[in-house]
Amino acid sequence: MTTLGIDLGGTKIAAAIVSEGRILKQDRRPTPQTGWPDVRDAMVGMAEELLSNTDATAVGVGSPGPLDFDEGKILFAPNIPGLENVQLVHELKERLTLPVFLENDANAAGFAEHRYGAARGYASSAYVTLSTGIGGGLFIGNTIVRGAHGVAGEIGHMTLLPGGPVGGDGHDGSWEALAAGRSIARDASYVYGRSMQTAELFQLAHDGDRKAERILDNATLMSGIGLANLVKVFDPAVFVLGGGMASDEQYRAKVEAGMRRYLDGWPVPDVVPAELGSDVGVIGAASVAEVESSQA
Amino acid sequence: MTTLGIDLGGTKIAAAIVSEGRILKQDRRPTPQTGWPDVRDAMVGMAEELLSNTDATAVGVGSPGPLDFDEGKILFAPNIPGLENVQLVHELKERLTLPVFLENDANAAGFAEHRYGAARGYASSAYVTLSTGIGGGLFIGNTIVRGAHGVAGEIGHMTLLPGGPVGGDGHDGSWEALAAGRSIARDASYVYGRSMQTAELFQLAHDGDRKAERILDNATLMSGIGLANLVKVFDPAVFVLGGGMASDEQYRAKVEAGMRRYLDGWPVPDVVPAELGSDVGVIGAASVAEVESSQA
Repeated sequence: MTTLGIDLGGTKIAAAIVSEGRILKQDRRPTPQTGWPDVRDAMVGMAEELLSNTDATAVGVGSPGPLDFDEGKILFAPNIPGLENVQLVHELKERLTLPVFLENDANAAGFAEHRYGAARGYASSAYVTLSTGIGGGLFIGNTIVRGAHGVAGEIGHMTLLPGGPVGGDGHDGSWEALAAGRSIARDASYVYGRSMQTAELFQLAHDGDRKAERILDNATLMSGIGLANLVKVFDPAVFVLGGGMASDEQYRAKVEAGMRRYLDGWPVPDVVPAELGSDVGVIGAASVAEVESSQA
Repeated sequence: MTTLGIDLGGTKIAAAIVSEGRILKQDRRPTPQTGWPDVRDAMVGMAEELLSNTDATAVGVGSPGPLDFDEGKILFAPNIPGLENVQLVHELKERLTLPVFLENDANAAGFAEHRYGAARGYASSAYVTLSTGIGGGLFIGNTIVRGAHGVAGEIGHMTLLPGGPVGGDGHDGSWEALAAGRSIARDASYVYGRSMQTAELFQLAHDGDRKAERILDNATLMSGIGLANLVKVFDPAVFVLGGGMASDEQYRAKVEAGMRRYLDGWPVPDVVPAELGSDVGVIGAASVAEVESSQA
Protein backbone atom coordinates (compact mmCIF):
# COMPACT_ATOMS: atom_id res chain seq x y z
CA MET A 1 0.00 0.00 0.00
CA THR A 2 1.30 3.43 -0.97
CA THR A 3 0.63 6.54 1.12
CA LEU A 4 1.89 10.08 1.50
CA GLY A 5 3.58 11.03 4.78
CA ILE A 6 4.02 14.66 5.87
CA ASP A 7 6.27 15.52 8.82
CA LEU A 8 5.41 19.01 10.04
CA GLY A 9 8.31 20.43 12.06
CA GLY A 10 9.22 23.80 13.50
CA THR A 11 11.92 24.52 10.90
CA LYS A 12 11.07 22.23 7.98
CA ILE A 13 8.23 20.32 6.39
CA ALA A 14 9.24 16.94 4.95
CA ALA A 15 6.94 14.90 2.74
CA ALA A 16 7.36 11.55 0.98
CA ILE A 17 5.54 8.91 -0.98
CA VAL A 18 6.09 5.72 1.00
CA SER A 19 5.33 2.09 0.28
CA GLU A 20 5.79 -0.55 3.01
CA GLY A 21 8.22 1.71 4.84
CA ARG A 22 10.29 2.55 1.73
CA ILE A 23 10.53 6.11 0.42
CA LEU A 24 9.73 6.30 -3.30
CA LYS A 25 10.14 10.06 -3.67
CA GLN A 26 10.38 12.98 -1.28
CA ASP A 27 10.51 16.73 -0.82
CA ARG A 28 11.54 19.13 1.91
CA ARG A 29 10.80 22.84 2.46
CA PRO A 30 11.37 25.39 5.23
CA THR A 31 8.31 25.78 7.46
CA PRO A 32 6.65 29.16 6.74
CA GLN A 33 6.79 31.28 9.88
CA THR A 34 3.90 33.43 8.66
CA GLY A 35 0.85 31.57 9.98
CA TRP A 36 -1.44 28.67 9.18
CA PRO A 37 -2.64 29.54 5.64
CA ASP A 38 0.98 29.59 4.41
CA VAL A 39 1.87 26.41 6.29
CA ARG A 40 -1.19 24.69 4.86
CA ASP A 41 -0.48 25.87 1.32
CA ALA A 42 3.12 24.67 1.57
CA MET A 43 1.91 21.21 2.65
CA VAL A 44 -0.75 21.10 -0.06
CA GLY A 45 1.73 22.20 -2.74
CA MET A 46 4.26 19.54 -1.78
CA ALA A 47 1.53 16.91 -1.52
CA GLU A 48 0.04 17.67 -4.94
CA GLU A 49 3.42 17.47 -6.65
CA LEU A 50 4.39 14.23 -4.93
CA LEU A 51 0.98 12.58 -5.38
CA SER A 52 0.87 13.06 -9.17
CA ASN A 53 1.47 9.78 -11.00
CA THR A 54 1.34 7.67 -7.83
CA ASP A 55 -1.31 5.27 -6.57
CA ALA A 56 -1.16 6.71 -3.03
CA THR A 57 -4.54 6.30 -1.35
CA ALA A 58 -4.19 8.22 1.92
CA VAL A 59 -2.25 11.01 3.63
CA GLY A 60 -0.74 10.95 7.13
CA VAL A 61 0.52 14.04 8.96
CA GLY A 62 2.85 13.93 11.96
CA SER A 63 2.53 17.16 13.92
CA PRO A 64 3.69 18.68 17.17
CA GLY A 65 0.84 18.92 19.65
CA PRO A 66 -1.36 18.98 21.63
CA LEU A 67 -3.85 17.67 19.06
CA ASP A 68 -7.58 17.01 19.06
CA PHE A 69 -7.82 13.58 17.42
CA ASP A 70 -11.62 13.53 17.20
CA GLU A 71 -11.72 16.84 15.35
CA GLY A 72 -8.44 16.37 13.45
CA LYS A 73 -7.16 19.66 14.84
CA ILE A 74 -3.83 21.05 16.00
CA LEU A 75 -4.80 22.79 19.22
CA PHE A 76 -1.46 24.51 19.61
CA ALA A 77 2.05 24.04 18.16
CA PRO A 78 4.61 25.69 20.45
CA ASN A 79 7.34 25.87 17.75
CA ILE A 80 5.29 27.13 14.78
CA PRO A 81 3.94 30.71 14.86
CA GLY A 82 0.20 31.05 14.26
CA LEU A 83 -0.78 27.40 14.55
CA GLU A 84 -3.60 27.52 17.00
CA ASN A 85 -6.85 25.58 16.74
CA VAL A 86 -6.36 24.74 13.04
CA GLN A 87 -8.61 22.25 11.23
CA LEU A 88 -5.73 20.40 9.62
CA VAL A 89 -7.52 17.20 8.64
CA HIS A 90 -10.59 18.97 7.28
CA GLU A 91 -8.66 21.53 5.23
CA LEU A 92 -6.17 19.04 3.76
CA LYS A 93 -8.88 16.51 2.93
CA GLU A 94 -10.86 19.17 1.07
CA ARG A 95 -7.87 20.16 -1.07
CA LEU A 96 -6.27 16.74 -1.66
CA THR A 97 -9.50 14.71 -1.97
CA LEU A 98 -7.89 11.82 -0.11
CA PRO A 99 -8.42 10.55 3.44
CA VAL A 100 -6.12 12.45 5.84
CA PHE A 101 -4.94 11.18 9.25
CA LEU A 102 -3.28 13.21 11.99
CA GLU A 103 -0.89 11.84 14.62
CA ASN A 104 1.49 13.45 17.07
CA ASP A 105 5.06 13.48 15.79
CA ALA A 106 6.59 11.27 18.51
CA ASN A 107 3.89 8.62 18.08
CA ALA A 108 4.32 8.71 14.30
CA ALA A 109 8.11 8.37 14.51
CA GLY A 110 7.86 5.54 17.01
CA PHE A 111 5.28 3.80 14.84
CA ALA A 112 7.73 3.88 11.92
CA GLU A 113 10.39 2.17 14.06
CA HIS A 114 7.74 -0.27 15.33
CA ARG A 115 6.60 -1.37 11.87
CA TYR A 116 9.60 -0.84 9.60
CA GLY A 117 12.59 0.01 11.76
CA ALA A 118 14.40 -1.29 14.82
CA ALA A 119 11.29 -2.92 16.39
CA ARG A 120 9.95 -4.70 13.30
CA GLY A 121 9.02 -8.28 14.13
CA TYR A 122 8.32 -7.49 17.79
CA ALA A 123 4.74 -7.79 19.07
CA SER A 124 5.03 -4.60 21.12
CA SER A 125 7.52 -1.80 21.57
CA ALA A 126 8.20 1.43 23.41
CA TYR A 127 9.92 4.23 21.52
CA VAL A 128 11.93 6.55 23.74
CA THR A 129 13.53 9.74 22.40
CA LEU A 130 16.40 10.96 24.54
CA SER A 131 17.09 14.39 23.15
CA THR A 132 16.62 18.03 24.21
CA GLY A 133 13.47 16.66 25.84
CA ILE A 134 12.33 13.11 26.56
CA GLY A 135 9.27 11.68 24.81
CA GLY A 136 8.04 8.51 23.26
CA GLY A 137 5.28 6.26 22.10
CA LEU A 138 3.84 2.85 22.96
CA PHE A 139 2.76 0.27 20.39
CA ILE A 140 0.98 -3.09 20.54
CA GLY A 141 0.53 -4.90 17.23
CA ASN A 142 -0.85 -2.33 14.80
CA THR A 143 -2.13 -0.09 17.55
CA ILE A 144 -0.68 3.20 18.75
CA VAL A 145 -1.54 3.53 22.46
CA ARG A 146 -2.87 7.09 22.49
CA GLY A 147 -4.65 7.01 25.81
CA ALA A 148 -7.99 8.54 26.73
CA HIS A 149 -6.76 12.15 26.35
CA GLY A 150 -3.91 11.65 23.83
CA VAL A 151 -1.39 11.81 26.69
CA ALA A 152 -0.15 8.19 26.66
CA GLY A 153 3.55 8.01 25.83
CA GLU A 154 4.35 11.38 27.45
CA ILE A 155 6.81 9.32 29.43
CA GLY A 156 9.34 12.11 29.98
CA HIS A 157 6.87 13.68 32.40
CA MET A 158 6.79 10.73 34.80
CA THR A 159 7.94 11.85 38.24
CA LEU A 160 11.08 9.91 39.18
CA LEU A 161 12.31 11.99 42.11
CA PRO A 162 9.71 14.00 44.07
CA GLY A 163 11.38 17.22 45.18
CA GLY A 164 13.88 17.08 42.29
CA PRO A 165 14.42 19.90 39.76
CA VAL A 166 11.33 21.59 38.31
CA GLY A 167 10.62 20.84 34.63
CA GLY A 168 9.03 22.79 31.78
CA ASP A 169 5.51 21.91 32.95
CA GLY A 170 6.19 23.27 36.45
CA HIS A 171 6.38 19.89 38.18
CA ASP A 172 9.30 18.69 40.26
CA GLY A 173 11.48 15.68 39.57
CA SER A 174 10.27 14.48 36.17
CA TRP A 175 12.44 12.14 34.06
CA GLU A 176 12.89 14.98 31.57
CA ALA A 177 13.92 17.51 34.23
CA LEU A 178 16.46 14.98 35.57
CA ALA A 179 17.93 13.51 32.41
CA ALA A 180 17.03 15.29 29.13
CA GLY A 181 19.66 17.16 27.12
CA ARG A 182 18.39 20.48 28.40
CA SER A 183 18.65 19.32 32.01
CA ILE A 184 22.19 18.01 31.46
CA ALA A 185 23.14 21.41 30.04
CA ARG A 186 21.51 23.07 33.07
CA ASP A 187 23.52 20.95 35.51
CA ALA A 188 26.75 21.38 33.52
CA SER A 189 26.31 25.16 33.41
CA TYR A 190 25.77 25.18 37.16
CA VAL A 191 28.79 22.98 37.92
CA TYR A 192 31.25 24.75 35.61
CA GLY A 193 29.90 28.24 36.28
CA ARG A 194 29.44 29.16 32.62
CA SER A 195 26.91 28.40 29.89
CA MET A 196 27.66 24.89 28.63
CA GLN A 197 25.85 22.86 25.98
CA THR A 198 25.20 19.12 26.21
CA ALA A 199 27.71 18.28 23.45
CA GLU A 200 30.59 19.88 25.35
CA LEU A 201 29.62 18.05 28.53
CA PHE A 202 29.57 14.73 26.63
CA GLN A 203 33.06 15.54 25.27
CA LEU A 204 34.39 16.37 28.74
CA ALA A 205 32.99 13.09 30.08
CA HIS A 206 34.55 11.14 27.19
CA ASP A 207 37.88 12.80 28.07
CA GLY A 208 37.56 11.53 31.64
CA ASP A 209 36.56 14.72 33.47
CA ARG A 210 35.25 13.46 36.81
CA LYS A 211 32.49 16.01 37.32
CA ALA A 212 31.23 15.62 33.76
CA GLU A 213 31.15 11.85 34.20
CA ARG A 214 29.16 12.28 37.39
CA ILE A 215 26.57 14.48 35.68
CA LEU A 216 26.17 11.87 32.93
CA ASP A 217 26.10 8.98 35.43
CA ASN A 218 23.25 10.73 37.22
CA ALA A 219 21.26 11.43 34.07
CA THR A 220 21.73 7.96 32.57
CA LEU A 221 20.79 6.23 35.84
CA MET A 222 17.58 8.25 35.90
CA SER A 223 16.85 7.26 32.30
CA GLY A 224 17.52 3.64 33.26
CA ILE A 225 14.98 3.99 36.06
CA GLY A 226 12.53 5.51 33.57
CA LEU A 227 12.88 2.49 31.28
CA ALA A 228 12.56 0.05 34.20
CA ASN A 229 9.35 1.82 35.24
CA LEU A 230 7.96 1.38 31.74
CA VAL A 231 8.59 -2.37 32.06
CA LYS A 232 6.54 -2.48 35.28
CA VAL A 233 3.66 -0.59 33.61
CA PHE A 234 3.62 -1.57 29.94
CA ASP A 235 6.25 -4.35 29.60
CA PRO A 236 7.21 -3.82 25.94
CA ALA A 237 9.06 -6.56 24.04
CA VAL A 238 11.69 -4.02 23.00
CA PHE A 239 12.80 -0.47 23.70
CA VAL A 240 13.83 1.60 20.69
CA LEU A 241 16.07 4.47 21.79
CA GLY A 242 16.07 7.49 19.48
CA GLY A 243 17.03 11.15 19.70
CA GLY A 244 20.42 12.88 19.62
CA MET A 245 21.90 11.55 22.85
CA ALA A 246 20.92 7.95 22.07
CA SER A 247 23.17 7.94 18.99
CA ASP A 248 26.14 7.87 21.42
CA GLU A 249 26.93 4.21 22.12
CA GLN A 250 28.54 4.79 25.53
CA TYR A 251 25.54 6.83 26.59
CA ARG A 252 23.14 4.06 25.52
CA ALA A 253 25.23 1.47 27.39
CA LYS A 254 25.01 3.52 30.59
CA VAL A 255 21.23 3.93 30.25
CA GLU A 256 20.83 0.19 29.69
CA ALA A 257 23.04 -0.60 32.71
CA GLY A 258 20.84 1.65 34.85
CA MET A 259 17.74 -0.13 33.57
CA ARG A 260 19.23 -3.55 34.30
CA ARG A 261 20.14 -2.50 37.82
CA TYR A 262 16.47 -1.69 38.48
CA LEU A 263 15.25 -4.83 36.68
CA ASP A 264 17.35 -7.28 38.68
CA GLY A 265 14.98 -10.23 39.24
CA TRP A 266 12.59 -9.03 36.51
CA PRO A 267 12.33 -9.91 32.81
CA VAL A 268 14.60 -7.66 30.74
CA PRO A 269 13.38 -6.45 27.33
CA ASP A 270 15.69 -5.90 24.36
CA VAL A 271 17.10 -2.38 23.94
CA VAL A 272 18.02 -1.28 20.42
CA PRO A 273 18.97 2.02 18.79
CA ALA A 274 16.56 3.65 16.34
CA GLU A 275 17.29 2.76 12.70
CA LEU A 276 15.39 5.10 10.43
CA GLY A 277 17.40 8.28 11.04
CA SER A 278 16.06 11.54 9.70
CA ASP A 279 13.44 9.77 7.53
CA VAL A 280 11.60 8.48 10.59
CA GLY A 281 9.08 11.35 10.59
CA VAL A 282 7.76 10.93 7.04
CA ILE A 283 7.83 7.13 7.17
CA GLY A 284 5.90 7.30 10.43
CA ALA A 285 3.28 9.70 9.08
CA ALA A 286 2.87 7.48 6.01
CA SER A 287 2.57 4.38 8.22
CA VAL A 288 -0.19 6.01 10.25
CA ALA A 289 -2.09 6.68 7.01
CA GLU A 290 -1.51 3.09 5.89
CA VAL A 291 -2.86 1.50 9.08
CA GLU A 292 -5.64 3.98 9.81
CA SER A 293 -7.06 3.93 6.29
CA SER A 294 -7.10 0.13 6.22
CA GLN A 295 -8.99 0.11 9.54
CA ALA A 296 -11.39 2.92 8.61
CA MET B 1 -22.82 -15.92 27.60
CA THR B 2 -22.41 -18.08 30.71
CA THR B 3 -19.02 -19.13 32.05
CA LEU B 4 -17.47 -20.56 35.20
CA GLY B 5 -15.02 -18.40 37.14
CA ILE B 6 -12.59 -19.82 39.70
CA ASP B 7 -10.65 -17.53 42.03
CA LEU B 8 -7.69 -19.45 43.44
CA GLY B 9 -6.46 -17.76 46.63
CA GLY B 10 -4.04 -18.62 49.40
CA THR B 11 -6.76 -19.34 51.96
CA LYS B 12 -9.87 -20.03 49.88
CA ILE B 13 -11.01 -21.13 46.46
CA ALA B 14 -14.14 -19.36 45.22
CA ALA B 15 -16.04 -20.49 42.14
CA ALA B 16 -19.18 -19.20 40.46
CA ILE B 17 -21.36 -19.57 37.40
CA VAL B 18 -21.50 -16.08 35.94
CA SER B 19 -23.55 -14.56 33.13
CA GLU B 20 -22.78 -11.00 31.93
CA GLY B 21 -21.13 -10.18 35.25
CA ARG B 22 -23.98 -11.61 37.38
CA ILE B 23 -23.40 -14.55 39.70
CA LEU B 24 -26.00 -17.31 39.15
CA LYS B 25 -24.64 -19.73 41.76
CA GLN B 26 -21.43 -20.03 43.71
CA ASP B 27 -19.33 -22.11 46.07
CA ARG B 28 -16.37 -21.50 48.36
CA ARG B 29 -13.89 -23.89 50.01
CA PRO B 30 -10.68 -23.58 52.01
CA THR B 31 -7.58 -23.96 49.82
CA PRO B 32 -5.93 -27.34 50.53
CA GLN B 33 -2.45 -26.72 51.94
CA THR B 34 -1.35 -30.21 50.91
CA GLY B 35 -0.07 -29.71 47.38
CA TRP B 36 -1.25 -29.41 43.79
CA PRO B 37 -3.24 -32.68 43.34
CA ASP B 38 -5.51 -31.74 46.25
CA VAL B 39 -5.85 -28.13 45.06
CA ARG B 40 -6.69 -29.36 41.56
CA ASP B 41 -9.21 -31.92 42.83
CA ALA B 42 -10.90 -29.28 44.97
CA MET B 43 -11.25 -26.99 41.94
CA VAL B 44 -12.49 -29.83 39.72
CA GLY B 45 -15.01 -30.97 42.35
CA MET B 46 -16.45 -27.47 42.78
CA ALA B 47 -16.50 -26.94 39.02
CA GLU B 48 -18.31 -30.20 38.26
CA GLU B 49 -21.01 -29.49 40.84
CA LEU B 50 -21.55 -25.92 39.67
CA LEU B 51 -21.44 -26.76 35.96
CA SER B 52 -24.19 -29.39 36.12
CA ASN B 53 -27.45 -28.14 34.62
CA THR B 54 -25.87 -24.93 33.27
CA ASP B 55 -25.03 -23.88 29.72
CA ALA B 56 -21.58 -22.61 30.73
CA THR B 57 -19.20 -22.93 27.79
CA ALA B 58 -15.80 -22.03 29.23
CA VAL B 59 -13.82 -21.84 32.47
CA GLY B 60 -11.59 -18.99 33.66
CA VAL B 61 -9.13 -19.25 36.54
CA GLY B 62 -7.62 -16.27 38.35
CA SER B 63 -4.42 -17.30 40.05
CA PRO B 64 -1.53 -15.76 41.92
CA GLY B 65 1.62 -15.79 39.81
CA PRO B 66 4.02 -15.70 38.11
CA LEU B 67 2.27 -17.59 35.30
CA ASP B 68 3.33 -18.95 31.93
CA PHE B 69 0.47 -17.87 29.65
CA ASP B 70 1.66 -19.78 26.58
CA GLU B 71 1.79 -23.06 28.49
CA GLY B 72 -1.14 -22.34 30.82
CA LYS B 73 1.07 -22.98 33.83
CA ILE B 74 1.43 -21.58 37.33
CA LEU B 75 5.20 -21.21 37.64
CA PHE B 76 5.08 -20.49 41.33
CA ALA B 77 2.42 -19.39 43.86
CA PRO B 78 4.09 -17.84 46.90
CA ASN B 79 1.03 -18.26 49.17
CA ILE B 80 0.00 -21.84 48.28
CA PRO B 81 2.27 -24.73 49.34
CA GLY B 82 3.34 -27.10 46.55
CA LEU B 83 2.18 -25.05 43.59
CA GLU B 84 5.24 -25.00 41.42
CA ASN B 85 5.29 -25.47 37.67
CA VAL B 86 1.77 -26.93 37.51
CA GLN B 87 -0.05 -27.51 34.21
CA LEU B 88 -3.28 -25.92 35.39
CA VAL B 89 -4.93 -25.32 32.01
CA HIS B 90 -4.04 -28.74 30.63
CA GLU B 91 -5.17 -30.69 33.71
CA LEU B 92 -8.44 -28.80 34.18
CA LYS B 93 -9.31 -28.96 30.49
CA GLU B 94 -8.81 -32.73 30.51
CA ARG B 95 -11.13 -33.23 33.47
CA LEU B 96 -13.81 -30.63 32.68
CA THR B 97 -13.85 -31.06 28.88
CA LEU B 98 -14.34 -27.32 28.43
CA PRO B 99 -11.92 -24.62 27.27
CA VAL B 100 -9.93 -23.28 30.25
CA PHE B 101 -8.25 -19.87 30.46
CA LEU B 102 -5.71 -18.70 33.02
CA GLU B 103 -5.15 -15.10 34.12
CA ASN B 104 -3.29 -13.53 37.00
CA ASP B 105 -5.60 -12.60 39.85
CA ALA B 106 -5.05 -8.82 39.77
CA ASN B 107 -5.66 -8.68 36.01
CA ALA B 108 -8.80 -10.82 36.39
CA ALA B 109 -10.18 -8.65 39.21
CA GLY B 110 -9.43 -5.45 37.31
CA PHE B 111 -11.06 -6.87 34.20
CA ALA B 112 -14.26 -7.52 36.18
CA GLU B 113 -14.33 -3.88 37.29
CA HIS B 114 -13.52 -2.82 33.71
CA ARG B 115 -16.40 -4.75 32.13
CA TYR B 116 -19.04 -5.02 34.82
CA GLY B 117 -18.01 -2.83 37.74
CA ALA B 118 -16.85 0.72 38.40
CA ALA B 119 -15.25 1.21 34.95
CA ARG B 120 -18.08 -0.16 32.80
CA GLY B 121 -18.78 2.19 29.90
CA TYR B 122 -15.22 3.56 29.83
CA ALA B 123 -13.03 2.82 26.80
CA SER B 124 -9.98 2.16 28.96
CA SER B 125 -9.20 1.82 32.64
CA ALA B 126 -6.43 1.20 35.14
CA TYR B 127 -7.23 -0.90 38.20
CA VAL B 128 -5.08 -0.07 41.21
CA THR B 129 -5.21 -2.15 44.40
CA LEU B 130 -3.98 -0.26 47.43
CA SER B 131 -3.68 -2.96 50.04
CA THR B 132 -0.92 -4.86 51.87
CA GLY B 133 0.87 -4.51 48.55
CA ILE B 134 0.16 -2.36 45.49
CA GLY B 135 -0.79 -3.96 42.18
CA GLY B 136 -3.09 -3.48 39.28
CA GLY B 137 -4.10 -4.07 35.71
CA LEU B 138 -4.50 -2.06 32.51
CA PHE B 139 -7.40 -2.48 30.09
CA ILE B 140 -8.23 -1.10 26.63
CA GLY B 141 -11.57 -2.16 25.16
CA ASN B 142 -11.78 -5.93 25.61
CA THR B 143 -8.03 -6.30 25.95
CA ILE B 144 -6.02 -6.99 29.11
CA VAL B 145 -2.62 -5.38 28.63
CA ARG B 146 -0.40 -8.27 29.72
CA GLY B 147 2.88 -7.06 28.28
CA ALA B 148 5.57 -9.08 26.54
CA HIS B 149 6.53 -11.01 29.70
CA GLY B 150 3.25 -10.86 31.65
CA VAL B 151 4.68 -8.02 33.77
CA ALA B 152 2.46 -5.14 32.58
CA GLY B 153 0.35 -3.76 35.41
CA GLU B 154 2.97 -4.54 38.11
CA ILE B 155 2.66 -0.85 38.82
CA GLY B 156 3.51 -1.08 42.52
CA HIS B 157 7.10 -1.80 41.51
CA MET B 158 7.62 1.49 39.69
CA THR B 159 10.48 3.40 41.30
CA LEU B 160 9.14 6.70 42.62
CA LEU B 161 12.04 7.74 44.88
CA PRO B 162 15.49 6.39 44.03
CA GLY B 163 17.33 5.81 47.31
CA GLY B 164 14.05 5.36 49.21
CA PRO B 165 13.18 2.30 51.32
CA VAL B 166 13.96 -1.14 49.89
CA GLY B 167 10.94 -3.23 48.85
CA GLY B 168 10.16 -6.94 48.73
CA ASP B 169 11.95 -7.37 45.41
CA GLY B 170 15.16 -5.82 46.79
CA HIS B 171 14.85 -2.52 44.92
CA ASP B 172 14.86 0.91 46.52
CA GLY B 173 12.08 3.45 46.42
CA SER B 174 9.23 1.58 44.72
CA TRP B 175 5.65 2.84 45.03
CA GLU B 176 4.84 -0.24 47.09
CA ALA B 177 7.80 0.25 49.45
CA LEU B 178 6.73 3.87 49.95
CA ALA B 179 2.96 3.59 50.24
CA ALA B 180 1.53 0.06 50.57
CA GLY B 181 -0.14 -1.09 53.79
CA ARG B 182 2.94 -3.04 54.80
CA SER B 183 5.16 0.00 54.31
CA ILE B 184 2.80 2.21 56.33
CA ALA B 185 2.95 -0.38 59.14
CA ARG B 186 6.77 -0.39 58.85
CA ASP B 187 6.95 3.41 59.18
CA ALA B 188 4.38 3.47 62.01
CA SER B 189 6.27 0.80 63.95
CA TYR B 190 9.47 2.80 63.55
CA VAL B 191 7.91 6.09 64.62
CA TYR B 192 6.01 4.74 67.64
CA GLY B 193 8.72 2.29 68.70
CA ARG B 194 6.43 -0.74 68.83
CA SER B 195 4.81 -3.11 66.37
CA MET B 196 1.85 -1.27 64.83
CA GLN B 197 -0.57 -2.44 62.14
CA THR B 198 -1.95 -0.24 59.36
CA ALA B 199 -5.48 -0.15 60.84
CA GLU B 200 -4.24 1.34 64.13
CA LEU B 201 -2.24 3.98 62.26
CA PHE B 202 -5.32 4.92 60.20
CA GLN B 203 -7.30 5.24 63.47
CA LEU B 204 -4.63 7.46 65.05
CA ALA B 205 -4.62 9.68 61.97
CA HIS B 206 -8.43 9.94 62.02
CA ASP B 207 -8.14 10.99 65.68
CA GLY B 208 -5.79 13.81 64.67
CA ASP B 209 -2.45 12.40 65.82
CA ARG B 210 0.10 14.59 64.02
CA LYS B 211 2.74 11.94 63.37
CA ALA B 212 0.19 9.44 62.11
CA GLU B 213 -1.26 12.07 59.78
CA ARG B 214 2.23 12.79 58.47
CA ILE B 215 2.88 9.10 57.70
CA LEU B 216 -0.43 8.91 55.80
CA ASP B 217 0.21 12.23 54.02
CA ASN B 218 3.51 10.82 52.80
CA ALA B 219 2.06 7.53 51.64
CA THR B 220 -0.96 9.06 49.92
CA LEU B 221 1.16 11.69 48.14
CA MET B 222 3.35 8.89 46.79
CA SER B 223 0.27 7.01 45.60
CA GLY B 224 -0.95 10.21 43.96
CA ILE B 225 2.40 10.46 42.14
CA GLY B 226 2.04 6.82 41.10
CA LEU B 227 -1.37 7.53 39.55
CA ALA B 228 -0.08 10.69 37.84
CA ASN B 229 2.77 8.66 36.35
CA LEU B 230 0.27 6.16 34.96
CA VAL B 231 -1.50 9.04 33.20
CA LYS B 232 1.77 10.07 31.52
CA VAL B 233 2.41 6.50 30.36
CA PHE B 234 -0.98 4.88 29.72
CA ASP B 235 -3.54 7.69 30.13
CA PRO B 236 -6.57 5.61 31.21
CA ALA B 237 -10.06 7.09 31.00
CA VAL B 238 -10.65 6.11 34.63
CA PHE B 239 -8.80 4.80 37.67
CA VAL B 240 -10.58 2.15 39.73
CA LEU B 241 -9.16 2.05 43.24
CA GLY B 242 -9.55 -1.26 45.05
CA GLY B 243 -7.96 -2.98 48.03
CA GLY B 244 -8.44 -2.53 51.76
CA MET B 245 -7.05 0.98 52.16
CA ALA B 246 -9.05 2.33 49.21
CA SER B 247 -12.34 1.55 50.98
CA ASP B 248 -11.52 4.49 53.32
CA GLU B 249 -13.00 7.61 51.75
CA GLN B 250 -10.61 10.07 53.41
CA TYR B 251 -7.67 7.99 52.24
CA ARG B 252 -8.97 7.97 48.66
CA ALA B 253 -9.49 11.74 48.77
CA LYS B 254 -5.88 12.26 49.83
CA VAL B 255 -4.57 9.99 47.07
CA GLU B 256 -6.66 11.84 44.51
CA ALA B 257 -5.44 15.22 45.81
CA GLY B 258 -1.84 14.03 45.41
CA MET B 259 -2.59 12.90 41.87
CA ARG B 260 -4.19 16.25 40.98
CA ARG B 261 -1.20 18.14 42.36
CA TYR B 262 1.06 16.26 39.93
CA LEU B 263 -1.43 16.59 37.05
CA ASP B 264 -1.79 20.36 37.26
CA GLY B 265 -1.91 21.44 33.59
CA TRP B 266 -2.62 17.89 32.39
CA PRO B 267 -5.90 16.09 31.65
CA VAL B 268 -7.30 14.49 34.81
CA PRO B 269 -8.98 11.07 34.55
CA ASP B 270 -11.94 10.03 36.70
CA VAL B 271 -11.09 8.23 39.94
CA VAL B 272 -13.72 5.83 41.33
CA PRO B 273 -13.79 3.18 44.07
CA ALA B 274 -14.07 -0.49 43.12
CA GLU B 275 -17.66 -1.77 43.13
CA LEU B 276 -17.67 -5.53 43.04
CA GLY B 277 -16.39 -6.25 46.54
CA SER B 278 -15.41 -9.79 47.42
CA ASP B 279 -17.04 -11.20 44.27
CA VAL B 280 -14.54 -9.42 42.05
CA GLY B 281 -12.24 -12.46 41.75
CA VAL B 282 -14.80 -14.96 40.43
CA ILE B 283 -16.54 -12.42 38.20
CA GLY B 284 -13.13 -11.49 36.78
CA ALA B 285 -12.11 -15.07 36.13
CA ALA B 286 -15.47 -15.71 34.45
CA SER B 287 -15.08 -12.55 32.35
CA VAL B 288 -11.68 -13.68 31.14
CA ALA B 289 -13.23 -16.97 30.01
CA GLU B 290 -16.06 -15.07 28.30
CA VAL B 291 -13.78 -12.79 26.30
CA GLU B 292 -10.98 -15.26 25.57
CA SER B 293 -13.31 -18.03 24.40
CA SER B 294 -15.17 -15.66 22.08
CA GLN B 295 -11.83 -14.56 20.57
CA ALA B 296 -10.34 -18.06 20.31
